[in-house]
Amino acid sequence: MTYETCSIAATLDLVGDRWTLLILRDLFRGMNRFDDVQKDLGIARNLLSNRLQKLVENDIVTRLPYQERPTRYEYRLTPKGQDLSPSLIALMQWGDRWCASEGPPILLFHESCGTELTHSIFCQNCEIDVKASKIRSRPGPGIKLNQLEVH
Amino acid sequence: MTYETCSIAATLDLVGDRWTLLILRDLFRGMNRFDDVQKDLGIARNLLSNRLQKLVENDIVTRLPYQERPTRYEYRLTPKGQDLSPSLIALMQWGDRWCASEGPPILLFHESCGTELTHSIFCQNCEIDVKASKIRSRPGPGIKLNQLEVH
Repeated sequence: MTYETCSIAATLDLVGDRWTLLILRDLFRGMNRFDDVQKDLGIARNLLSNRLQKLVENDIVTRLPYQERPTRYEYRLTPKGQDLSPSLIALMQWGDRWCASEGPPILLFHESCGTELTHSIFCQNCEIDVKASKIRSRPGPGIKLNQLEVH
Repeated sequence: MTYETCSIAATLDLVGDRWTLLILRDLFRGMNRFDDVQKDLGIARNLLSNRLQKLVENDIVTRLPYQERPTRYEYRLTPKGQDLSPSLIALMQWGDRWCASEGPPILLFHESCGTELTHSIFCQNCEIDVKASKIRSRPGPGIKLNQLEVH
């Protein structure tokens, strides 16, 4: 597949940067202020500023004033940003399985019933989690004809 | 949470690099040879070599000879590498929703029944997909005591 219309590449263009993903993680955890995120990550202020600006430009994060004189801002996830939650959870739970020798540092549960949550590729028809080896792909509406010719 | 025992950070240490994630995408698609991946991504040979070496060192990818005189190798995902499939699918489907104006370039389906597959955070108890705003977290067995004190 050519690079241009691959949705993984498109996603990585916007958030495929280690700092950016860690910033998003902090925002999901309710850490919304520049200084808090900066301190938590130990990231240089100009790098954090650049990453946040790019997230704001791409409508993944929005900047809102929370104080006047001097004006201070906090950063909140937009719906587009919140929709990255399953991606971050998938990355986290892979780390839980393969890198966390003492077990997961964080467990996720459903607010309304308390059930522990894991991400999955679920087949609604068979009602089972589908392993990678059982997943196949086919061209969707957004594919370009020249891609079909190449592969 | 301190950086050291966060599973998202642990994952990103191993695969949180744009090239690495695109290399893994190609391996999932059955592109297993150095030259094929190099050509597909347009990545410099030394960068590809470095990324593959790190993936092999971390047991995410394995290197197998497929030809002798001269010996040539191909790269295959280990079980640890295959387990990244849901993470890549989550990133891809976010791109489908937010970056693909003409619809998803690729659709995934279950090999055995043909049902279209999506990544989700599914509550087995309520039998629904759970939105980000309804997910809560609690400390797991791998959390350090000093983390509980800090937050």
